[in-house]
Amino acid sequence: MKVCRRVNFNAAHRLYRPDWSDEKNNEVFGKCNNPNFHGHNYVMEVWVEGKVDSETGYVIDLKILKQIINDHIVNEFDHKNLNLDCEEFESLIPTAENIIAVSWKKLRNALDPKYRLKLKLWETENNIFEYSGE
Amino acid sequence: MKVCRRVNFNAAHRLYRPDWSDEKNNEVFGKCNNPNFHGHNYVMEVWVEGKVDSETGYVIDLKILKQIINDHIVNEFDHKNLNLDCEEFESLIPTAENIIAVSWKKLRNALDPKYRLKLKLWETENNIFEYSGE
Amino acid sequence: MKVCRRVNFNAAHRLYRPDWSDEKNNEVFGKCNNPNFHGHNYVMEVWVEGKVDSETGYVIDLKILKQIINDHIVNEFDHKNLNLDCEEFESLIPTAENIIAVSWKKLRNALDPKYRLKLKLWETENNIFEYSGE
Amino acid sequence: MKVCRRVNFNAAHRLYRPDWSDEKNNEVFGKCNNPNFHGHNYVMEVWVEGKVDSETGYVIDLKILKQIINDHIVNEFDHKNLNLDCEEFESLIPTAENIIAVSWKKLRNALDPKYRLKLKLWETENNIFEYSGE
Amino acid sequence: MKVCRRVNFNAAHRLYRPDWSDEKNNEVFGKCNNPNFHGHNYVMEVWVEGKVDSETGYVIDLKILKQIINDHIVNEFDHKNLNLDCEEFESLIPTAENIIAVSWKKLRNALDPKYRLKLKLWETENNIFEYSGE
Amino acid sequence: MKVCRRVNFNAAHRLYRPDWSDEKNNEVFGKCNNPNFHGHNYVMEVWVEGKVDSETGYVIDLKILKQIINDHIVNEFDHKNLNLDCEEFESLIPTAENIIAVSWKKLRNALDPKYRLKLKLWETENNIFEYSGE
Repeated sequence: MKVCRRVNFNAAHRLYRPDWSDEKNNEVFGKCNNPNFHGHNYVMEVWVEGKVDSETGYVIDLKILKQIINDHIVNEFDHKNLNLDCEEFESLIPTAENIIAVSWKKLRNALDPKYRLKLKLWETENNIFEYSGE
Repeated sequence: MKVCRRVNFNAAHRLYRPDWSDEKNNEVFGKCNNPNFHGHNYVMEVWVEGKVDSETGYVIDLKILKQIINDHIVNEFDHKNLNLDCEEFESLIPTAENIIAVSWKKLRNALDPKYRLKLKLWETENNIFEYSGE
Repeated sequence: MKVCRRVNFNAAHRLYRPDWSDEKNNEVFGKCNNPNFHGHNYVMEVWVEGKVDSETGYVIDLKILKQIINDHIVNEFDHKNLNLDCEEFESLIPTAENIIAVSWKKLRNALDPKYRLKLKLWETENNIFEYSGE
Repeated sequence: MKVCRRVNFNAAHRLYRPDWSDEKNNEVFGKCNNPNFHGHNYVMEVWVEGKVDSETGYVIDLKILKQIINDHIVNEFDHKNLNLDCEEFESLIPTAENIIAVSWKKLRNALDPKYRLKLKLWETENNIFEYSGE
Repeated sequence: MKVCRRVNFNAAHRLYRPDWSDEKNNEVFGKCNNPNFHGHNYVMEVWVEGKVDSETGYVIDLKILKQIINDHIVNEFDHKNLNLDCEEFESLIPTAENIIAVSWKKLRNALDPKYRLKLKLWETENNIFEYSGE
Repeated sequence: MKVCRRVNFNAAHRLYRPDWSDEKNNEVFGKCNNPNFHGHNYVMEVWVEGKVDSETGYVIDLKILKQIINDHIVNEFDHKNLNLDCEEFESLIPTAENIIAVSWKKLRNALDPKYRLKLKLWETENNIFEYSGE
């Protein structure tokens, strides 16, 4: 049984590598390389797989899952500049792939190991990402 | 090949255990424990996996799948009180996990065994569930 | 300039008149007349019209508007049985039309008279309502 | 890691078999058998699975994936009559199952073999399809 | 008080004028001029404004409004070729503007004159139209 | 007759007044005052009201309207930092109210005066704005 809580966070970011020339950064990252940043309303689905507790009828209380996500994801990333405000992206480009992988590690550590974990991330309504740890 | 029909049903429910104290019910189920019930617009996706019939180009005629879902799910749950009107929840708490598991069993019995079956259920736009029989 | 905050509340209700026969209640209200109630995820947009404050660039701080809506609408209706738990519907049928009119009055009283107020309410994704006090 | 680009195309189609009688076509395909065609706004999610490039933080540049999808799917199907304008459906009924299987083959050929490929197709908001090559 | 019922219909159409050259048709209507037609999932909101009946709490029973819309719009346009199957468009180009104006007249005739009527039509998720008779 | 084209742009911004203390900026603008900026996927609907051209069946060719919006809004704001990259917000706080008013003026100048113009802007799925020049 898989259960999911959906959350939002609004953040600024920039895609670039300081060890690349401006030309290469522009060629690879295009307008996402704007030095003054741009931003997104990120939508994240956090999917937790486990057994249904026969007493409560829950896999996990979604109020508790929501609290874990708020503590480890929303409070870290919401209304932040991912490049400047979040140490995870000090030396890691905040592509959606890296955001979802970083988020997965943070939630994996916070969550009981008995659960399997999968994340889905919308950067825009047309660009979507999914990660389950591999 | 997987094909899906999406349906809706609007129902009332209450999460509580008669063998627990009011304190424990409130602690575990919070405001979902309101003795007068509350309700949701449930959205369910019914995913059927099978081979494409080379004559019709269909895995299953979605009009037939829609009829099966209406007979076994929508007519059973729509505009109902899950706790009071549905015998499946006489002694089973109507959490979304239990609703999706009960629905899966009902559809599994109604559907040709050659198909695999997976359900996805939205209780709210932020609380989502998925079940494929295990 | 019009600004809007969107909120959700999940509630149970029943449409019927105690002064009508069962036949007439069923004829007019159909399955919404289920004596054990059913429920919905209501979505409400609260639209406030006013001048932009030249200092803040706001018509109204949406954090403040959100608080007003939570105090007067969400806390009153969310996870409630509108017929049994809400005094506004003791002698008023909780149709969406009446829910939106009651909500409008509650918010109109809570909001500075300098603002115009319009509400939009989704009972389901196909049944939508709009009210601005007349 | 899975990444996705979502696209749209608007097309006309008709479901029927010339080797069947009108009665059989109507029985199986119902109103989808209208000889003058009808149409849909198709929505397609193209999911590509692969490793994150540690230099770019990308599985695949979604601008490049978008270009591949435009070249092989959108330009082929958008504002077209699938039965009359698209050679793939000269002798294949353009059911959503066949559209997604044809699209999968076209994209599979266009995409580096190191990636796994999965498609999801909405024919309407209630009829959804998924295919990953088997 | 305004109340709305949302419906869908899936249709094929072509935008062209027989009294224009191919060049002019292509210049004005672009790919919408495909002689073999293309199609859309149209979404229509039918908004009815009137007084709330104090007995029923309804402006209009949405089940009755749904029936009126099915009889006059959905049954006429769904799974049809607007140019070939619908006499309204025999000599009128089925642009979304003309579809919504034709629909408005049909519903205006079917609806009690005490109600005001407004329609909203989505041709795609990005192209939207609104009409209230003027 | 009203017609609409929907567009998106992704931008970073910060809400603050240099003539206010940090305390006052935090009190009024809260986390939107992050000095390193945050961002949004803005969705804008551009509504144009006018007469239907009896020859074309169009109020305005939406391909032309799309081009006007791209030239004056999307190219100006997409993947930009509104505070640092856009001269309109050099001395104007980029609240959604100010973004929609600035956009309205830009489109009003670009559009034939025979059309009426109304904009709708989503900053998040819960914060929505509407402006028609007054």
